[in-house]
Amino acid sequence: MSAALAELKDRLPEGSIVTDPALMESYRTDRAMFCEAGVPLVVVRARSTAEVSATMEVASKHGVPVVPQGARSGLSGAANAIDGCIVISLEAMDEVVRIDTANRYVVTQPGVFNAVLARAVAAEGLFYPPDPSSKEFCTIGGNLATNSGGLCCVKYGVTTDYVLGLEVVLASGEVVRTGRTTVKGVAGYDLARLFVGSEGTLGIITEATLRLRSAAQRPKTLAATFASAGDAAQAVTSVVTSTIVPSLLEFMDRTSVRAVNETFKLGFDDDVEAVILAQSDAGGTAGEAEIAEISAILSSAGAIEVVVAESDQEADALLAARREVLTAWETMGTTMIDDVCVPRDRLADLVAGIEQIAADNAVMIGVVGHAGDGNFHPTVVFDGQDADECKRAHRAFDEVMHLGLDLGGTITGEHGIGLLKTELLQAEIGDLSLRLHRDIKAALDPAGILNPGKVF
Amino acid sequence: MSAALAELKDRLPEGSIVTDPALMESYRTDRAMFCEAGVPLVVVRARSTAEVSATMEVASKHGVPVVPQGARSGLSGAANAIDGCIVISLEAMDEVVRIDTANRYVVTQPGVFNAVLARAVAAEGLFYPPDPSSKEFCTIGGNLATNSGGLCCVKYGVTTDYVLGLEVVLASGEVVRTGRTTVKGVAGYDLARLFVGSEGTLGIITEATLRLRSAAQRPKTLAATFASAGDAAQAVTSVVTSTIVPSLLEFMDRTSVRAVNETFKLGFDDDVEAVILAQSDAGGTAGEAEIAEISAILSSAGAIEVVVAESDQEADALLAARREVLTAWETMGTTMIDDVCVPRDRLADLVAGIEQIAADNAVMIGVVGHAGDGNFHPTVVFDGQDADECKRAHRAFDEVMHLGLDLGGTITGEHGIGLLKTELLQAEIGDLSLRLHRDIKAALDPAGILNPGKVF
Repeated sequence: MSAALAELKDRLPEGSIVTDPALMESYRTDRAMFCEAGVPLVVVRARSTAEVSATMEVASKHGVPVVPQGARSGLSGAANAIDGCIVISLEAMDEVVRIDTANRYVVTQPGVFNAVLARAVAAEGLFYPPDPSSKEFCTIGGNLATNSGGLCCVKYGVTTDYVLGLEVVLASGEVVRTGRTTVKGVAGYDLARLFVGSEGTLGIITEATLRLRSAAQRPKTLAATFASAGDAAQAVTSVVTSTIVPSLLEFMDRTSVRAVNETFKLGFDDDVEAVILAQSDAGGTAGEAEIAEISAILSSAGAIEVVVAESDQEADALLAARREVLTAWETMGTTMIDDVCVPRDRLADLVAGIEQIAADNAVMIGVVGHAGDGNFHPTVVFDGQDADECKRAHRAFDEVMHLGLDLGGTITGEHGIGLLKTELLQAEIGDLSLRLHRDIKAALDPAGILNPGKVF
Repeated sequence: MSAALAELKDRLPEGSIVTDPALMESYRTDRAMFCEAGVPLVVVRARSTAEVSATMEVASKHGVPVVPQGARSGLSGAANAIDGCIVISLEAMDEVVRIDTANRYVVTQPGVFNAVLARAVAAEGLFYPPDPSSKEFCTIGGNLATNSGGLCCVKYGVTTDYVLGLEVVLASGEVVRTGRTTVKGVAGYDLARLFVGSEGTLGIITEATLRLRSAAQRPKTLAATFASAGDAAQAVTSVVTSTIVPSLLEFMDRTSVRAVNETFKLGFDDDVEAVILAQSDAGGTAGEAEIAEISAILSSAGAIEVVVAESDQEADALLAARREVLTAWETMGTTMIDDVCVPRDRLADLVAGIEQIAADNAVMIGVVGHAGDGNFHPTVVFDGQDADECKRAHRAFDEVMHLGLDLGGTITGEHGIGLLKTELLQAEIGDLSLRLHRDIKAALDPAGILNPGKVF
């Protein structure tokens, strides 16, 4: 038994330590494709900040790499184990500590599922907006580590926009609190937002104070069909440059529409080449007015048909088409979901470029995404048993990211870099910015034990 | 002539260099009270990123400290010169480079005045919300360096919430671009937001890409008077915990109301102990409905009277009371404006505590501020020629900040630390966070030449 493991066993309660290889197996990977995963020395299922701190002290003393994990729902390999590492799982730190209704913030542990937190604050008449598609099975800690987005970002922003303060365990095991509980504050550097999105490479977030809004109104929903992706793209531009900010603005291309049609018999006509879904949560007559205006904009932009949901059931049925796309694709083959964000007026170029990439590589690529943000998830669907097709799928995936960069975009809008895109990061941010990343990493984690090899 | 100065003269155009002591005098200080200011070696009025870069190369080579300056409208001494330093003024880099209406961002140089930028984007039907009271005479670069707020923050957030990307000249003279033009993006650390609010200690911002919103609607305005600050404070809590987010929610205490009454004969009754001003920019009937609901909330909370402006002229007259407070105080003595932010439900405690501090120190302190954010500007008014009163004023100022901390708040909501509050920063963030600040500073500016002695 290694000295580090012996010391962990000495310092932590027995129930917090997992060394059974069979039990450790599920802690080796997140949900990313094509990413390496090692075998951990030990998995620490931490139940308190003190346990995280003790673990980091041991790791620091013995120079053992540490991989922090939430629910391992990530799509970029950031949570994948490294050979001989200590995995620190934050899943068991799953308490919503305090909801302050007067000042509208919640203090939460990192292991709380996103949707659980959202429901807890909703019970107090409040609203935590960030809503990744994985909200029922991703944790707030993971959301913070990757600065998660979701469907509501077009109106409400992303995770970092809700961070007031953090408690973070540093590489040394020291516990720092940064940020505040007030709405505003400029005392010192914005360290909280430096930790957000750093994918566990700078520290381990053990508690977060998150800003809340008043409860959203029940949304009104519409779906619009288009005879070409170009028309739909132009329609998106018309909506995002109007005075209305929809609370959801999603896009599905031909490949996506056909996939849900085939799998779930949703009954879209064969001539539908793209679908746009939009919501307004302005509430009451204001919400109805917004949906009417979005409907008019989409019609003017050439929609074949615009359907406004008359009931919540109808709205759910419309959204189901978008929600079920991935499930539909998963019935058709192995899927590799990408995450690219482009300036909002380049959607048509993105869709056309991806069609070309799919044709060139003889793979299927569907495009769905958060059109209102320019953030899309082109998904390669392929035969995972066919080595040549895997190679072509991987190449297509890379080409989509370079297309995103060529269109003035980024290689990741919300999934992060992890292991999946480390080589592409340099292409996006350049050598000098990469050096600053390394310098900051070295300042906070001089021995380089926090999630080494991830991000850069 | 020093070697550094000789080299600057060699590398920069003559018009960019100021060494005349009389001309340099105005570059020695910002608008902070009680802060030391040195005599610069030279003032560089940079006209391009290349000139900033060349200046930093020279400064770096010769180990000369550099103080970046915008319009020197800051209130914390962050822009004060250091003996023998190079002042780099960004005032002459005052071009709005590009407004992208389709993707709703503006690319701007740092020397553009906040209000000039706001008007430039308004001409394109767009809206840059951050609106410090100094908006007509503060620059975007200064706003970025201090993460400025303003009156609209209660609904629209602060400067950092609008930053998509930055061009920054590092201590070495190297030019790094960080961030993006897309709405979302998580490729690497959030370096842009690390530079924002760092008060010129980590780099010099030479260009910014800022997110824009669609043009705001013309606001509806109301003013409410209260017989006690406690009633007004409770009314603020009722508004901020309602479903409405006003676009402005300001507070004035008794001392403020009397000051404007005396100076400008605004006609508030003698029994008025506090005034709340609120706006809704929801527009049309929605705006009218919001103002009606805010009015009802304030009435229920015990307002003596609620007046809704019937015209823009009437609205301006109501807001004038708030805008003119500082001017009124300046006619009454030397003023020292503080900047404290507390949890929004602690307003009553803040006002009561400040009354006690004023009495204890035998000085006048008026409280005005952005009640919707819990961000207040208690202002000490005193006889600046009286040494003892100066001492008491300074002590009262410090006591107000400790009161803010005791109430769970921060020593600065929007003015920054500068030189004024460096000693208090440790009390707020603690030794460990301070060490992280130093480590990050050392990583980015190893020789410590960027605005040394400021912030910490």
